[in-house]
Amino acid sequence: MTQPGEYDASMRHALSLAAHGPVTGGNPQVGCVLVDDAGRIVAEGWHRGAGTPHAEIDALSKVEDATGLTAVVTLEPCNHTGRTGPCSVALLEAGVARVVYAVSDPGAHSSGGASTLRAAGIPVEGGVLAAEVEEFIEPWLTAARLGRPWVTVKWASSLDGRAAAADGTSQWITGTAARQRVHEQRAQSDAILVGTGTVLADDPSLTARGDGGELLAHQPVPVVVGERDVPAGAKLRSHPAGLIETHSRDLSLVLEGLFGRGIRRVFVEGGPALASAVIEAGLVDEYLVYLAPTLLGGARTAVGDIGVGTIGDQRRLRITAVETLGEDILITARPRRVSTPEGN
Amino acid sequence: MTQPGEYDASMRHALSLAAHGPVTGGNPQVGCVLVDDAGRIVAEGWHRGAGTPHAEIDALSKVEDATGLTAVVTLEPCNHTGRTGPCSVALLEAGVARVVYAVSDPGAHSSGGASTLRAAGIPVEGGVLAAEVEEFIEPWLTAARLGRPWVTVKWASSLDGRAAAADGTSQWITGTAARQRVHEQRAQSDAILVGTGTVLADDPSLTARGDGGELLAHQPVPVVVGERDVPAGAKLRSHPAGLIETHSRDLSLVLEGLFGRGIRRVFVEGGPALASAVIEAGLVDEYLVYLAPTLLGGARTAVGDIGVGTIGDQRRLRITAVETLGEDILITARPRRVSTPEGN
Repeated sequence: MTQPGEYDASMRHALSLAAHGPVTGGNPQVGCVLVDDAGRIVAEGWHRGAGTPHAEIDALSKVEDATGLTAVVTLEPCNHTGRTGPCSVALLEAGVARVVYAVSDPGAHSSGGASTLRAAGIPVEGGVLAAEVEEFIEPWLTAARLGRPWVTVKWASSLDGRAAAADGTSQWITGTAARQRVHEQRAQSDAILVGTGTVLADDPSLTARGDGGELLAHQPVPVVVGERDVPAGAKLRSHPAGLIETHSRDLSLVLEGLFGRGIRRVFVEGGPALASAVIEAGLVDEYLVYLAPTLLGGARTAVGDIGVGTIGDQRRLRITAVETLGEDILITARPRRVSTPEGN
Repeated sequence: MTQPGEYDASMRHALSLAAHGPVTGGNPQVGCVLVDDAGRIVAEGWHRGAGTPHAEIDALSKVEDATGLTAVVTLEPCNHTGRTGPCSVALLEAGVARVVYAVSDPGAHSSGGASTLRAAGIPVEGGVLAAEVEEFIEPWLTAARLGRPWVTVKWASSLDGRAAAADGTSQWITGTAARQRVHEQRAQSDAILVGTGTVLADDPSLTARGDGGELLAHQPVPVVVGERDVPAGAKLRSHPAGLIETHSRDLSLVLEGLFGRGIRRVFVEGGPALASAVIEAGLVDEYLVYLAPTLLGGARTAVGDIGVGTIGDQRRLRITAVETLGEDILITARPRRVSTPEGN
């Protein structure tokens, strides 16, 4: 057995390498280091996205001979032959003496790498810095475990919860800094969900753009939820990432379908009807609430009916961050697992 | 003339003394120091509330002989004979050599102290640290200038702007820390405004209480806005500060009447109809918005219609503070003088 904490520093370094990889796409961010007997890191690797080598393979490619080295990797080595061969076998063939990982691979097809390695007589230790790594890849892990993408719901409202004035006008409630942040959040998503009502009313482009209006490198695919068709001339029809029309309001089915296409992070942009439906269905993993320093009153709330009849049914959240963006406030929150009120 | 900045330190000290006085009541917080030729502070004074000596008189009472001293006071010495004599005359009679003040007295009856002193040949300088002092007594100054109390509107809502669930239940959206803060804010007000609808629906006590439920030293008087009577058995009828029934929905008239009674700070606690009416009438000086980490959806918004038909009519605010209180967020804001949207 290894000593407690023996591989913590190496794992932390592997985690920092993982962060170099893309947050979008079907694969998680994974980092790997190869460590010699003296605990020195002799090679680094990380995964650069689907179709490229896994972190372990990337690290192995940096050394002439991996015999006797310890592989420290943030995710259990895969056991799956996809576009690349199984990492468990690659590590065996490279002659590593030991494998240390943080988080078990939850994938139905890819898990089992640890067993394969152990069966071949290689000592394997899982769970090193597991909490830190789990938090880092939480959206991907959640998606893998639930078989649906990680769902972030974003809305922007006045301080009194309205998305628009009585006549529907809303440009611009939030300022440039907040709107730029939204573009960055789009770029960190695989897909943007939008309701047919919003498409028909606002004809949004839903691209991820930079400060100067230029398209960012990664564009999430727009997904239109609802039964109606997207009009022929809609801006969404010329979205650089294409367009997915679901012709359905069955959110679970829609999300399952997106997961099947390799989509792991969706960003729900509205309008209010879609946001409310996703909340009511209990499908939200993360909330991004932009509050503008203004009051609008009236009927156009950013969130509509979410099926809360009485206070005991409220959807309690846990706020994880409060930021100021220009004059606006961004509140990031997660659903609370215990949904009962505080009672104090 | 004095040197620029010569009395800044003394004025800052006078301001710190002013803060010892009560924020409630018809009089402002005022501090005064008496300074000798060498710039040493030889006496301190501050006002402890209506019916007690003004700050200048308090400071003069601390010295045997004020001849030749400079009086440094945060507010222009009054020229008014009320429950106490005019401070301008008292300073003259005490033989002070010079008077330095920060902010002119805006009171119709009390202003003119500087003129009286100058007419008697005493050098007088106003405007020293005026911005700092104005900010400190802004509510009182605003009330004096407008002839109505400073109006703070408070509401508590879910992150999506609701004050209650669909069936009207709302206890407790916010946690203990936020609720305790509300009690402290009540205690810093002269009056609490509440609508008849809330009185009839909730039968609130509207007392200012401490952590242990005990009554705080200062209790604001509850003021019921609306035409209906407060029921005989209502808790408000046994409020320790009494009860004012306005039998009116004319907010300007109500506020003017309260000003006439010496009320300078009112705290509007709701419900939504009253808060919305005060906002729509443009009578709000300060907003305190408590946001609880929960979602409720539905129709029971904390703010109703405020007369904003289109986005150009939005009520832009300037956020002055964002605080975390337990799990809740308190946003403090002021109306923006320019009400047009940013347009960016």
